[in-house]
Amino acid sequence: MAKGEVTVGILGLGVVGGGLFQILSDNADDIEQRVGAPVRVARVADNDWDRERDVQVPEQLRTTDAAEVYAADDVDIVVETIGGTDAALEFVLGAIQAGKSVVTSNKELVAKHGSEILDAASAQGVDVEFEGAVGGTIPIIRVLKESLEANRIQEVVGILNGTTNFILTRMTEESMPFETALGEAQKLGYAEADPTNDIEGIDPMYKIAILAAIAFGGRVDIDRIYTEGISKIAPVDIEYAEEMGYAIKLLAVAKREDEGIELRVHPALVPKSHPLATVNGVFNAVWVVGDACDQVMLYGRGAGGLPTGSAVAGDVIDCARNLLAGCAGRVLCTCRGALDIKPIEHVRTRTYVRMRVQDRPGVLGTIATIFGQEGVSIHSVVQRAGIDELAEIVWIMHEGLEQNLRSALGALGQLGMVDEICSVIRVVE
Amino acid sequence: MAKGEVTVGILGLGVVGGGLFQILSDNADDIEQRVGAPVRVARVADNDWDRERDVQVPEQLRTTDAAEVYAADDVDIVVETIGGTDAALEFVLGAIQAGKSVVTSNKELVAKHGSEILDAASAQGVDVEFEGAVGGTIPIIRVLKESLEANRIQEVVGILNGTTNFILTRMTEESMPFETALGEAQKLGYAEADPTNDIEGIDPMYKIAILAAIAFGGRVDIDRIYTEGISKIAPVDIEYAEEMGYAIKLLAVAKREDEGIELRVHPALVPKSHPLATVNGVFNAVWVVGDACDQVMLYGRGAGGLPTGSAVAGDVIDCARNLLAGCAGRVLCTCRGALDIKPIEHVRTRTYVRMRVQDRPGVLGTIATIFGQEGVSIHSVVQRAGIDELAEIVWIMHEGLEQNLRSALGALGQLGMVDEICSVIRVVE
Repeated sequence: MAKGEVTVGILGLGVVGGGLFQILSDNADDIEQRVGAPVRVARVADNDWDRERDVQVPEQLRTTDAAEVYAADDVDIVVETIGGTDAALEFVLGAIQAGKSVVTSNKELVAKHGSEILDAASAQGVDVEFEGAVGGTIPIIRVLKESLEANRIQEVVGILNGTTNFILTRMTEESMPFETALGEAQKLGYAEADPTNDIEGIDPMYKIAILAAIAFGGRVDIDRIYTEGISKIAPVDIEYAEEMGYAIKLLAVAKREDEGIELRVHPALVPKSHPLATVNGVFNAVWVVGDACDQVMLYGRGAGGLPTGSAVAGDVIDCARNLLAGCAGRVLCTCRGALDIKPIEHVRTRTYVRMRVQDRPGVLGTIATIFGQEGVSIHSVVQRAGIDELAEIVWIMHEGLEQNLRSALGALGQLGMVDEICSVIRVVE
Repeated sequence: MAKGEVTVGILGLGVVGGGLFQILSDNADDIEQRVGAPVRVARVADNDWDRERDVQVPEQLRTTDAAEVYAADDVDIVVETIGGTDAALEFVLGAIQAGKSVVTSNKELVAKHGSEILDAASAQGVDVEFEGAVGGTIPIIRVLKESLEANRIQEVVGILNGTTNFILTRMTEESMPFETALGEAQKLGYAEADPTNDIEGIDPMYKIAILAAIAFGGRVDIDRIYTEGISKIAPVDIEYAEEMGYAIKLLAVAKREDEGIELRVHPALVPKSHPLATVNGVFNAVWVVGDACDQVMLYGRGAGGLPTGSAVAGDVIDCARNLLAGCAGRVLCTCRGALDIKPIEHVRTRTYVRMRVQDRPGVLGTIATIFGQEGVSIHSVVQRAGIDELAEIVWIMHEGLEQNLRSALGALGQLGMVDEICSVIRVVE
């Protein structure tokens, strides 16, 4: 640091690490001018230097030994873009122990081990930043931690997974089944060969855990986050939703309620007049409601080497400024204890229910009566003649307790006249 | 500062100053926990303590003497929310000279005197922050200065004035004339008795000057910003735009081009598929394009005591953190010289032109020929029978040089067959 420059070590030269390397090279002059000193990549560790890449890393910077990078005297800031939690956790903790500032884009690592990592950083007085972990290029972490910090945040709702948003957008535009849209996403490189983490909502679950911890100032036990993916959404659900003025989106919801925090990831009907309903394709967006700021939305690319690299590079610059100004650790963890997360059964939402029933007199009345007995209040209902002596009924419920709806659906499942409960999708206004 | 708390002096207890006071009171505990020390309002100066207000300031904090606040030993951070440039400039420079960190929400002050103020701050090693000056609650200053800082920014386009966006929204929704919508805005308190600064685009001109300086790293001579308001927009223009798939918005545009920077404020046709087209009512939004981040949008309330107070409070917290960490002046001005702003005549845009012409054979052909002679290329044209032997023609031009369009319109003005050129509105894709 006395040497008048700030040096960076990168662990893992994948999509994001490569994007970061390119940005720090391409915009080196501008960045130097803004920071007041050069920000230079001094070392890069990767375990496979034969892989084809868009960026060329000079031979003398390359190593296969991560410890050589994070322990090196000539590295001030360590960037972890490996992913996963095994090696990444070891390296990040090693870097903190070595007194380095750390930047990571690893949502799983931060969601699962954020406490441990931030406690270690606090003890060492170093920075740990992770803007790239949530929403790709969208600067939601800094906005929550700094710009909106004077607010009591009431709600954070995000479209935080580009893969599923792309799939739902294609299903909407082309009335294509889920599997076809997923195949297209895989062909375009938006979905992985094993798409489970995306389509089952695990990726956005990690992300909303991180945002909730910051927004509500408490640590999050991710096992308590209700998580449901989009693989059961049918084109017909999207068509019904469209007709009723809604888009279907995979939402990650964090809400402060009197009785605790709601934390959940699931598909939802969103009114078309809501700004989140207009977020299409691989774009992400985060909707924030606070007591002073009211409604704020941030929108941008949720993935990709350069967009996520932009977020990571912003963190690197912030760490560099703190090192130059002698104030590393300036903004650290602000959690007090753990958040009290409500079980999903205690959450109140509106709901869309599509079912197939026997097409004969008295069926609609019997079902409606059972809903009423279980305390589920019906807002509207549409019945259409179906096939094979079955009719399709779509119900929209008034806001009510999830556990009441579950009891009602359980009772209906016992009823011979209900052939199948095809879809249950929450409505988020 | 050694006293384990950070103290704030507020100059001007109007809408924004009052909002700030309320936020710092209501959320004092949360803010203390996040910052690591209490952030307390120690003094408030205003020249009229009899005015009715939503907030109650304890007697012992009140004064009518601004200098008593900004020079006081027990004030660490001075917040200027007076507005205007006379007293505000004197007080802000006085505060900086007294070694205080300064937060202001005064766009006119920053747009006109930003250089002088930031130079003084730099010499004194204090912070000057002004998130509340642009976009109300929207954290665009911090996002441009920090989160997106590794980008080479290509474009910043904003809906930066809530009053005019409200008026245009009402004109669109209700087909009401400009004057009626303005009257409604005035009745609701969204427009001032003298609405010139808003409706003629002066307010968003100050704001885009500030954003351009940060985005492109150079100081801005505001006299070189082409500025046009919305008072000439007619409901029929909005109807034509709607039919063609556009919304009309008052845009503030800053663009980096090879031959210089484009800086302009004017109404524009925006395709309805563009996220900016969906920003309605008093909401503001800023669209940013950078080489790494690609397209980013931020959306929120552009005015109001609590929303703008939220932005100001975020700055106060940032200054407080810097004081506590001993790194005031950590992020200051990053301008190099002045931006080279292109004259509006050299700007290339698409354009919408509506005119009334004599309703007789040969007129359309003659006009089209003149456009062609002046190098203006026609994309589409619609002619409708009008009244009093006049026909109305709406032209959409391909992208072309503003000066060519002006020459053509000048030539047409000489032509007896053109009764009136009613509207010329740029199209921003």
